[in-house]
Amino acid sequence: MSAVRIARISEEPIRLAEHVDAIDDPRMGAETSFVGRVRDHDPDAAGAVTALEYTAHPDAQTALSAIAARAAEAHGAIVAVSHRIGRLEVGDAAVVIAVAAAHRGEAFAACRDIIEDIKRELPVWKRQLEADGTAAWKGLGG
Amino acid sequence: MSAVRIARISEEPIRLAEHVDAIDDPRMGAETSFVGRVRDHDPDAAGAVTALEYTAHPDAQTALSAIAARAAEAHGAIVAVSHRIGRLEVGDAAVVIAVAAAHRGEAFAACRDIIEDIKRELPVWKRQLEADGTAAWKGLGG
Repeated sequence: MSAVRIARISEEPIRLAEHVDAIDDPRMGAETSFVGRVRDHDPDAAGAVTALEYTAHPDAQTALSAIAARAAEAHGAIVAVSHRIGRLEVGDAAVVIAVAAAHRGEAFAACRDIIEDIKRELPVWKRQLEADGTAAWKGLGG
Repeated sequence: MSAVRIARISEEPIRLAEHVDAIDDPRMGAETSFVGRVRDHDPDAAGAVTALEYTAHPDAQTALSAIAARAAEAHGAIVAVSHRIGRLEVGDAAVVIAVAAAHRGEAFAACRDIIEDIKRELPVWKRQLEADGTAAWKGLGG
């Protein structure tokens, strides 16, 4: 009963509610979600973060679909995941994940696997714009 | 910056969006949520589950507040959690948790701690109503 309902890379704002609605299934007793947002500070930054610019490699869509499918299969889960690219302001959601599974163990594991795989494998880079006018490229895992 | 924004035991339907809105904070880069729903089957049940009746001990509200405060403090998190009682139909949310933290590790850990503590400690019991007319009490941890 595993399935990927959304696996999307897009410049549009991401709505958690759309992802939670997409995974709804009466056979599933547990739902988890994760939202990763642009924070207003970074311990490594010279000044406050004002925005981030995300850039995706052309292979990123295929990679995100594979990450979602792998987690769905491994945990018998229903998955919806989106990564936003382009310029994001502080507070904007960069990643949204929603997962439904029969029980909470699988639901947490699938959600966690997806964000860790995104950080490790997804070819999306971010350029951090800071209040003092500097900009720094941040690799995967940030 | 840890805080408990909602810690509620109520007979009213629980809305995830209310909980997600309650934990919103620009200092927090990661948000997690958990929803536990009444499933339409149980491997131990004689027939399909048609509904559950949840009953809370009078101390349950105090216990839920303590669980929420402990997780918020331990992980520097902002927490919103509700447990519904009374009669719930298949698909209804029995527990909703939303957590915001600086990073994903703390956000996942706080959310997981809260649901495990609820299952282990919260004095709420459920009576499972099955399609064949039988009813079975289920203890904590179900």
